[in-house]
Amino acid sequence: MVQAKTWILTKHFDGFPKDSNFKLKVEDLPEPKNGEVLLEAVFLSVDPYMRPFSRLSMKEGDVMIGGQVAKVIQSKNPAFPVGSHVVGNCGWRTHTVCDGTGLIPIMPDWPKDVSLSLALGIMGMPGLTALYGIEEVLGLKKGETILVNAAAGAVGSVVGQIAKIKGCKVVGSAGSDAKVAFIKELGFDEAFNYKTVGSLEEALKKASPEGYDCFFENVGGPFFTAAVQQMKTFGRIAVCGGIATYNDATPQTGPYPHLIMILKELKMEGFMQSRWNHKNEESLKRMMGWLKEGKLQSREHITKGFENMPAAFMGILRGENIGKAVIAV
Amino acid sequence: MVQAKTWILTKHFDGFPKDSNFKLKVEDLPEPKNGEVLLEAVFLSVDPYMRPFSRLSMKEGDVMIGGQVAKVIQSKNPAFPVGSHVVGNCGWRTHTVCDGTGLIPIMPDWPKDVSLSLALGIMGMPGLTALYGIEEVLGLKKGETILVNAAAGAVGSVVGQIAKIKGCKVVGSAGSDAKVAFIKELGFDEAFNYKTVGSLEEALKKASPEGYDCFFENVGGPFFTAAVQQMKTFGRIAVCGGIATYNDATPQTGPYPHLIMILKELKMEGFMQSRWNHKNEESLKRMMGWLKEGKLQSREHITKGFENMPAAFMGILRGENIGKAVIAV
Repeated sequence: MVQAKTWILTKHFDGFPKDSNFKLKVEDLPEPKNGEVLLEAVFLSVDPYMRPFSRLSMKEGDVMIGGQVAKVIQSKNPAFPVGSHVVGNCGWRTHTVCDGTGLIPIMPDWPKDVSLSLALGIMGMPGLTALYGIEEVLGLKKGETILVNAAAGAVGSVVGQIAKIKGCKVVGSAGSDAKVAFIKELGFDEAFNYKTVGSLEEALKKASPEGYDCFFENVGGPFFTAAVQQMKTFGRIAVCGGIATYNDATPQTGPYPHLIMILKELKMEGFMQSRWNHKNEESLKRMMGWLKEGKLQSREHITKGFENMPAAFMGILRGENIGKAVIAV
Repeated sequence: MVQAKTWILTKHFDGFPKDSNFKLKVEDLPEPKNGEVLLEAVFLSVDPYMRPFSRLSMKEGDVMIGGQVAKVIQSKNPAFPVGSHVVGNCGWRTHTVCDGTGLIPIMPDWPKDVSLSLALGIMGMPGLTALYGIEEVLGLKKGETILVNAAAGAVGSVVGQIAKIKGCKVVGSAGSDAKVAFIKELGFDEAFNYKTVGSLEEALKKASPEGYDCFFENVGGPFFTAAVQQMKTFGRIAVCGGIATYNDATPQTGPYPHLIMILKELKMEGFMQSRWNHKNEESLKRMMGWLKEGKLQSREHITKGFENMPAAFMGILRGENIGKAVIAV
């Protein structure tokens, strides 16, 4: 009999997550029945969305939600042979028995020299989020100027690189000098540390005196308020995240953006990459092409050990990661 | 020599406008030169936009901005014969000498039984704002449910009627029982007095338990915060105004809408009708057609006397008007 380690959400988060919100629980798994497989996690993902979604899609006592790259170690389902790898939303667990619904096999021509962990990052949900935000939501055009915040994160770092591929000027904001150095290395035209600039308004104006055509928003809060004022007429804002607000026990507030949205005729759209799942196969091929050509670079922030998942999760909410945060079992 | 009475903005508004912000000033006008006309105001418009735009486009001592229907009383410009009527952004003044730039002649086939004042309302800027908000920004489709606030106002009352023409369910919010009765008469399916409902959330849910496809936003503030939570997935919000916030000495704040915009993948766009000026001729023909067929009704809140303009303006900011506020000279 196989045992799965799992991380349970014992109590809904109230404010910033604490160790006491999580509990490691060992579960006996049944043998896979016909049509089922037994998976073993190889890499697990921690992402900011888990903070708000936990309250929306989980009840206390549930296994934490999340994606993983797993190896098929037993199979009674011919679609998933033993030894193959899949990406699945199995949650924070080392082993899973399931019937294969929702599992996505790793691309058949995945290069041997590319870590499978990238299927949780630049070649997975965060990378596709960046791509669809740029192409489907913003409709970013060559020569335009785009602003992205949380720019050293799993999504932001890809946003900037894709925008460079598309011939745009890219301005990035991040929360440490090391992150600023990293995104400069990635080819961002301008980058600043929002924690040390003093005036966000001045930093945004200095980085692009003529304003911004597009804004890829991952943060929310006062950054949003400052950035929306710097948009050009007919500017577009893709709302991908609001990490600065996720841990508020009482929602923080800001001025209503109505007047500037009217005066500049701004457009603002919230989105999730799942809307374009039907394009994923083609999109991942393009992204893999860019990766092989060296036009896209991936950086990961790897935490070893399943037992360290809560710490890794709290780390991303504190902004400790540069690039994609991944747990290697 | 002709004298013009004008209303000067003596001091920029700080908080709610006061009598002392305005001063009546008499001005001697020169004779019209070649290419010029002398206009006499017949109807003048007061609109909420004047409050925020005064700070953006005026300096202290300027004549207040605004549109009017005027009669050409002298003309050295063949495009504007004596006795004809025009709409122009001449500001708060009884007489104007100008070279005709920006003047729009009243439609040649304007019906005799339709007051020319409607060229400042349903057959002018507010009516076109309603039409373009619905058609160009929201792309409202038959069978959808639309929410409009400030629904008894110059724009809101037209929004609801056009949405009914398009075969939609219309929910309106207004600030008095008389206004609610008025919009019910106009054919709104559901209407409530936001000042007396107790819970806005409950009122919005009761009026449309399945949520809203579209939201035509004229108000801002807590109404916005409540309404955005009731949007359907892929809901669209046209941001036309924010009258609840225009008189804030310190901008009022509300929760950032990021999370609900992401979860429901909402789109929100600020706009001004001037973006579609090239369509005005065709649009006004359609609107006049609906008016003649009785599908559109106009209600006006007429104040007599040029000297009462500041009071009329402050009145609309307090929500005293039902329908379009107009000053008859």
